[in-house]
Amino acid sequence: MLYLVHMIVRIPDTVAAERADALKADEKAMAQRLQREGKWRHLWRVAGEYANYSVFDVAGNDELHQLLSALPLFPFMQISVTPLAQHPSAIAPN
Amino acid sequence: MLYLVHMIVRIPDTVAAERADALKADEKAMAQRLQREGKWRHLWRVAGEYANYSVFDVAGNDELHQLLSALPLFPFMQISVTPLAQHPSAIAPN
Amino acid sequence: MLYLVHMIVRIPDTVAAERADALKADEKAMAQRLQREGKWRHLWRVAGEYANYSVFDVAGNDELHQLLSALPLFPFMQISVTPLAQHPSAIAPN
Amino acid sequence: MLYLVHMIVRIPDTVAAERADALKADEKAMAQRLQREGKWRHLWRVAGEYANYSVFDVAGNDELHQLLSALPLFPFMQISVTPLAQHPSAIAPN
Amino acid sequence: MLYLVHMIVRIPDTVAAERADALKADEKAMAQRLQREGKWRHLWRVAGEYANYSVFDVAGNDELHQLLSALPLFPFMQISVTPLAQHPSAIAPN
Amino acid sequence: MLYLVHMIVRIPDTVAAERADALKADEKAMAQRLQREGKWRHLWRVAGEYANYSVFDVAGNDELHQLLSALPLFPFMQISVTPLAQHPSAIAPN
Amino acid sequence: MLYLVHMIVRIPDTVAAERADALKADEKAMAQRLQREGKWRHLWRVAGEYANYSVFDVAGNDELHQLLSALPLFPFMQISVTPLAQHPSAIAPN
Amino acid sequence: MLYLVHMIVRIPDTVAAERADALKADEKAMAQRLQREGKWRHLWRVAGEYANYSVFDVAGNDELHQLLSALPLFPFMQISVTPLAQHPSAIAPN
Amino acid sequence: MLYLVHMIVRIPDTVAAERADALKADEKAMAQRLQREGKWRHLWRVAGEYANYSVFDVAGNDELHQLLSALPLFPFMQISVTPLAQHPSAIAPN
Amino acid sequence: MLYLVHMIVRIPDTVAAERADALKADEKAMAQRLQREGKWRHLWRVAGEYANYSVFDVAGNDELHQLLSALPLFPFMQISVTPLAQHPSAIAPN
Repeated sequence: MLYLVHMIVRIPDTVAAERADALKADEKAMAQRLQREGKWRHLWRVAGEYANYSVFDVAGNDELHQLLSALPLFPFMQISVTPLAQHPSAIAPN
Repeated sequence: MLYLVHMIVRIPDTVAAERADALKADEKAMAQRLQREGKWRHLWRVAGEYANYSVFDVAGNDELHQLLSALPLFPFMQISVTPLAQHPSAIAPN
Repeated sequence: MLYLVHMIVRIPDTVAAERADALKADEKAMAQRLQREGKWRHLWRVAGEYANYSVFDVAGNDELHQLLSALPLFPFMQISVTPLAQHPSAIAPN
Repeated sequence: MLYLVHMIVRIPDTVAAERADALKADEKAMAQRLQREGKWRHLWRVAGEYANYSVFDVAGNDELHQLLSALPLFPFMQISVTPLAQHPSAIAPN
Repeated sequence: MLYLVHMIVRIPDTVAAERADALKADEKAMAQRLQREGKWRHLWRVAGEYANYSVFDVAGNDELHQLLSALPLFPFMQISVTPLAQHPSAIAPN
Repeated sequence: MLYLVHMIVRIPDTVAAERADALKADEKAMAQRLQREGKWRHLWRVAGEYANYSVFDVAGNDELHQLLSALPLFPFMQISVTPLAQHPSAIAPN
Repeated sequence: MLYLVHMIVRIPDTVAAERADALKADEKAMAQRLQREGKWRHLWRVAGEYANYSVFDVAGNDELHQLLSALPLFPFMQISVTPLAQHPSAIAPN
Repeated sequence: MLYLVHMIVRIPDTVAAERADALKADEKAMAQRLQREGKWRHLWRVAGEYANYSVFDVAGNDELHQLLSALPLFPFMQISVTPLAQHPSAIAPN
Repeated sequence: MLYLVHMIVRIPDTVAAERADALKADEKAMAQRLQREGKWRHLWRVAGEYANYSVFDVAGNDELHQLLSALPLFPFMQISVTPLAQHPSAIAPN
Repeated sequence: MLYLVHMIVRIPDTVAAERADALKADEKAMAQRLQREGKWRHLWRVAGEYANYSVFDVAGNDELHQLLSALPLFPFMQISVTPLAQHPSAIAPN
């Protein structure tokens, strides 16, 4: 089941640089693992912003929330989720 | 080059049903042709809405505008475009 | 799987009263059938507005979209969907 | 009498982790007590966000405010309330 | 129990003047009856707008919805409701 | 002359608890004095929020601003003012 | 007493040109009369829009509403009012 | 003096096709004349939308309004204007 | 050339009181000098808010920006500018 | 390929003045180098705001993101990007 996820990252200036760097490294590792597992199907940078649009392929709302809330940068992200359905004009299944 | 495109369809009640049906059939045909050509890479229905999120893979801003403005339902859609760049944590190229 | 659905109904003044009445009767019948089937778990009126908040219990995004887009008043509703997950402090499963 | 309540939690990074943990534990205990008493009828997580949608069943506006403003995380939540009425198409009373 | 109600009136230009006048006369009569009954406690014009802020004193959400949805201009109004509670600094009960 | 005033209180977490308590006590005293004087005609809590809707009865814009800007919590409030006029359907003068 | 008034004019395409012209002529005459009487102190065009910002000098909220609601284009305008007070740094009284 | 101008075109479906075509042709002719005169310095299409961003170089606010309000599509456009000043890091004068 | 300028002042609680007082005193002095010079034609307090609406009369966009960005409170203000043109119904030139 | 870029700069008061000055100097140097290289085609100050509108001429979305995200003030800017296409009424190519 697919979900479009919009993530805006806002790390406040009061977070120490080392902590921020560690969080980002952990975030990258988890993002790449989830991509390899097929859960995080697409990951695109929004041009000009510290933000991304992603597509997740998970069993449902619960698995989606577990994955997103476990991201190291979750406390510093503004996330919005759009559930996606099969489009009748799409030539491929979701 | 990738673009996320959000399309909301609003056909006013004053449009005759036959005209609306013809526009929708033409829209579907064009959408499927562009998908087969690889220009309209993804097409997803927003669950619960007469709207879609799509990803286009085109040469640039001009080709994107030509494709979108040629859609039969273009006069009845509210469209917004987000240019996408390669994300440093993505495991595949855009 | 649960979804909170917000529906605002806006039937334009140009729709004939008989057609509007027929649509509303069909809508009511379908809403009550879906409630009896357990798909439309809750249906609440927003006090003071021609709108409702509902909770649907369906297999996923696709079934949700099929149900909502088949509603007789769908063309006259502004709908927004919020996917719901299990809350860790809830004493009952979703 | 039912109310839909939307709560977004935003604990600033300047709050010490121990204090935040204590507040969350107290919040959970109170939420579960109110659920057992039937005042907090539903509690759902918004998928992907540190937020919930809830339904309260209370005597009226005053009791609702007393319950919400007594929550340990109240100072860190953005709350909005929607009063709910009986829907004419609902098959069960509120 | 008190509710602040904001009503914006938007009668489209396509409504015949006679019908609009009749609706407004009925609206006025019902508004004055409800005021005399004590249900519609305050009725103020928003300066410069075809809108009002009102305070209703009713048994609860259901009675509020019944009164508002029965107003002759209800189909032409955008209404929003704010439930009010006793303020701890108020010198009089609600 | 009447004004509807919406006040949202946001005291940042960096304000010491003693200072916040003192400000709130002063605010309450001034609010009650102004109510007794008839300037602050109504004071209602917005259910579920640290906010109020109030009605002031003052000589005009200048007196309103003097009263509001002298409130102890003024630096921590987001205030919006709506000037109210006599409604033609009101059965009592403002 | 001064008020800043923002007026956006939106005459729908369904209004006949002659009626629109007559309304505009009446509007202009009334606007100029009120300016000569000193009630409508300033009248500025918003560059690039069919809109204006104005300053009214009237006895209070009631007179302001009477003047604005009597404008011939009132049914086709979106109006918002900001009450103005004496600024402590102004070198002239309002 | 430079101004950034955002124009969104919304021609309602009730306008006859011939009238719309004539308006668009007149608009194009005027736009090209103003470009040749150096008043309309830049004209860009917003990709995916019936909208443009333009830069005008005119004597001031009055000339800008005269040019924009004389455009044939002015009644069908939503226009917003941003006045531009010399940027201290720009290597060329405006 | 006239501009309507809306300024909202937000001095964070972390700014020391002495520094804030000095900034406000400097701001007042500069505001009064500019008023005496005729550049800052009007200065009104928004009733109930730490904000003002002002009208500037300057040579153009560049002079306006120089004046506003030189204000001592500029770093703590949210400013928006509306360019004003001569209104055809105004009885006096701008 | 052209993009309109809107940048709002918000440097928090907690950043030391020396660091802010160094960031601004670096930003200016990079902005001027990119202008000389033809990548940053236009740079305009928004009158009255610490913000700019710019036009970039780059190979595509990826180059745009690389340039913007490398700006020294990037962490303190709110950026939004609008992709621009050739306008059919423009007399010059983009």
